[in-house]
Amino acid sequence: MSDPEQRTDARVKPYKKEFDYSYTLGAFPTFELLDTRPEIVRAVILHPGFTERERITARCAAQGIPVRADERLLMRISPKENCYVAGVFSKYEDRLASDRDHVVLVRPGDMGNLGTIVRTLAGLGIRDLGVVTPCADRFHPRTVRASMGALFRLRIEAFSSFDEYVKQYGERDVYPFMLDGALPLRVADCPVSPRYTLVFGNEATGLDAAFREVGQSVYIPQTAAVDSLNLPIAVGIGVFSFTTRNPRPD
Amino acid sequence: MSDPEQRTDARVKPYKKEFDYSYTLGAFPTFELLDTRPEIVRAVILHPGFTERERITARCAAQGIPVRADERLLMRISPKENCYVAGVFSKYEDRLASDRDHVVLVRPGDMGNLGTIVRTLAGLGIRDLGVVTPCADRFHPRTVRASMGALFRLRIEAFSSFDEYVKQYGERDVYPFMLDGALPLRVADCPVSPRYTLVFGNEATGLDAAFREVGQSVYIPQTAAVDSLNLPIAVGIGVFSFTTRNPRPD
Repeated sequence: MSDPEQRTDARVKPYKKEFDYSYTLGAFPTFELLDTRPEIVRAVILHPGFTERERITARCAAQGIPVRADERLLMRISPKENCYVAGVFSKYEDRLASDRDHVVLVRPGDMGNLGTIVRTLAGLGIRDLGVVTPCADRFHPRTVRASMGALFRLRIEAFSSFDEYVKQYGERDVYPFMLDGALPLRVADCPVSPRYTLVFGNEATGLDAAFREVGQSVYIPQTAAVDSLNLPIAVGIGVFSFTTRNPRPD
Repeated sequence: MSDPEQRTDARVKPYKKEFDYSYTLGAFPTFELLDTRPEIVRAVILHPGFTERERITARCAAQGIPVRADERLLMRISPKENCYVAGVFSKYEDRLASDRDHVVLVRPGDMGNLGTIVRTLAGLGIRDLGVVTPCADRFHPRTVRASMGALFRLRIEAFSSFDEYVKQYGERDVYPFMLDGALPLRVADCPVSPRYTLVFGNEATGLDAAFREVGQSVYIPQTAAVDSLNLPIAVGIGVFSFTTRNPRPD
């Protein structure tokens, strides 16, 4: 590690889902990556004009992470917008913490929404997220960016079905959020639970009727003026209600 | 109005902020426009392949609104994505209802966020939105689209400053949302108020310290894991809390 600027993998390419690595684009998510999961960082790529070059170079040197100044490579991996720094990281698998509250997203389709939800969960104190596949690519640079790098702070585990999730983590109260749910959620009467899972469906299709049987279905009261709230807003409202009603020692 | 397909203004151009008209792009917002503000619709433009052509043509005929099939015009006003129907509408000014609860956004910068917030307010029952300028263009087709057409269901009024808003509508409780607000918002203890205004700042800068003096400042408790919640999520949580804590007859 005597000269980390020389050691970067030169084969870095524009992101594809099948790669075993991905990118953080921009300073904020790249510093988040270095703060939370330094062991998965393969390299950091800098634009010569990056204003925090000294800070990030020192950090990477301390952690044995190669750094390379390569403007052309940045343009290849971030063709649509100017990017002054990127992290290259290995994808990884997490397991959820079985004794914590969870959120499960069933087949979320939009990377921006998934990233926004990840950021919201981190902000409201939920650290465990299950996703039922097929779903938006959680490692795509767009998802990472929408999460502002909060992706690396959560444990995220993928399941082939909700049943698969229940088999592994089912000893808890389950609250599926459904437009025709049985229980209205209001600030004054959010359920109290020692350990819960909040479940939200796909943006276009929601949760199918079978989810009424997996737990206490809940709905967010809303007017007839809109079809439905958008998914990140519904998750934000649901998680805020449950986390503030059910504070944990942490 | 004997042949409405012949009467459209041929000078329709790609949107610019200084125009006195704008567009709804796509079926959902265009039907919302026709449902809620038919009097401002100048024309409806169809792609020959639009599947709901008969339904929209009948609706426009009944309301004396010209319809034109013009694929090239649609491509000019929506160059980035296929658009099968668009409405052309005159911009308008609203006044807020002084006896209703309000939300005020101070200099919101992002059109997608503004549209998402409009949709959220409509869904949660807030019908009056103040915006302090300069701010994202509420009539831009991207804002209209992000709102899913809910824009037309709200009364929206622009103010040159928050003081200007207070001069006109100040007889009420004001709750500025600030990261360093004095009162934590939790489901169990959201304030009760006969008539309130919730105030939210710009995405990047929030509300400046002077807003602590204009009312009871509030914060949404959040972890150190993120900088802040994103603006539409914070508005969703705040509005959900206040609307469910303070139900109105309507």
